[in-house]
Amino acid sequence: MKNNIKFIAFDADDTLWINENYFREAEHAFCHLMMPWLPHEKTAEELFKTEMQNLKLFGYGAKGFALSLIETAIRISDGKITGGHMQKIIDIVKRLLERPVELLPDADEVLRTLKNKYALVLATKGDLLDQQRKISKSGLEGYFAHIEIMSDKRPQDYTRLLRRLGSKPQEFVMVGNSLKSDVLAPLEAGAYAVYVPYPIIWKHECTQEPRSPRYYKAEKLRDILDFLL
Amino acid sequence: MKNNIKFIAFDADDTLWINENYFREAEHAFCHLMMPWLPHEKTAEELFKTEMQNLKLFGYGAKGFALSLIETAIRISDGKITGGHMQKIIDIVKRLLERPVELLPDADEVLRTLKNKYALVLATKGDLLDQQRKISKSGLEGYFAHIEIMSDKRPQDYTRLLRRLGSKPQEFVMVGNSLKSDVLAPLEAGAYAVYVPYPIIWKHECTQEPRSPRYYKAEKLRDILDFLL
Repeated sequence: MKNNIKFIAFDADDTLWINENYFREAEHAFCHLMMPWLPHEKTAEELFKTEMQNLKLFGYGAKGFALSLIETAIRISDGKITGGHMQKIIDIVKRLLERPVELLPDADEVLRTLKNKYALVLATKGDLLDQQRKISKSGLEGYFAHIEIMSDKRPQDYTRLLRRLGSKPQEFVMVGNSLKSDVLAPLEAGAYAVYVPYPIIWKHECTQEPRSPRYYKAEKLRDILDFLL
Repeated sequence: MKNNIKFIAFDADDTLWINENYFREAEHAFCHLMMPWLPHEKTAEELFKTEMQNLKLFGYGAKGFALSLIETAIRISDGKITGGHMQKIIDIVKRLLERPVELLPDADEVLRTLKNKYALVLATKGDLLDQQRKISKSGLEGYFAHIEIMSDKRPQDYTRLLRRLGSKPQEFVMVGNSLKSDVLAPLEAGAYAVYVPYPIIWKHECTQEPRSPRYYKAEKLRDILDFLL
């Protein structure tokens, strides 16, 4: 792989810094709030159902998540949820947006090591402002030649990114923790992909590992150096 | 101006297509819903207050607007707003996100006329997915050499855009309906700006016309051709 590659793109959430844990904590706080109406796991199931219904309209990120929390609360309380509870739900999301950025181990060192040999790209999806804020808080911004905040990561979204970079598919490798968004989609666009698993992942991003000569797996982020140095 | 210019950037909402009218209609429906608690104009004032408090955290666009509507409803009803009312508020925003894109007069023709002489750029702010959806629905996407969805339009955001385009400030003109975002900010970044007023504008974007040799005003969009052809 490494002889072809010019661009290494990194996913951000749960690849370079912690994210899903914070969403899980927010979900947990929400389920706790809904206990007068439904047991914890049932609320989590209902929330996922709402999120899937709203995904096309709201997209990814914390604000769409907030609106799905509120709709779920209305539905499972049969409209009996109070204004006070609603404010608590909004406050859960505000706290989520204000979390500090905690880098994953080796993120800084891996980027610093690779940045002299490759053009590094940050390719992340979610709310525009929220992602920009996290990038800025991370202290990693200076390593990237290009930052792309994407509304989705489908094969055609990668094709558009490649065009924007002036990169051929076989000159580009995507590194990330979502098999669906960071691996299958860039592979389908003709690029390379490295899967770096994260211990927890949103159900929506779950899928099987692919078979492809352009697919690599790294147990930890720093293991990508084995393929790329 | 026209001898220097290489890039013409257009704002989208209320410059190329209708937007503020739809937000006003949504606001109107919301104020109507809150009439048991507060008269119409008072609700609008309270909403604006909430939006200004939340702007830094939520940014621009329909989803942040939705969360501000909900917070305002909780506050002015003193927590007594019902789940049914809340769902109505969410539905107002869902309808807002599903509105068709109605082009403003001459938008298509002006872009078609200019695209052979200049590199056209779309520079808009708001929710990432919502803006992408509107661009795609507009049928105008093909005219643009570059599309930039921005979380804000401050002078430093224009400086970043110029760098991304490889443009000097004096090679770039911004065309739009917001004096604050589309005129003052690019002027401060050293670029040209053309103000094309729209009959209604969000209070947050209001300010005075500047004095600058790089400032132009066009009564209607097609009048920009006078400066640029």
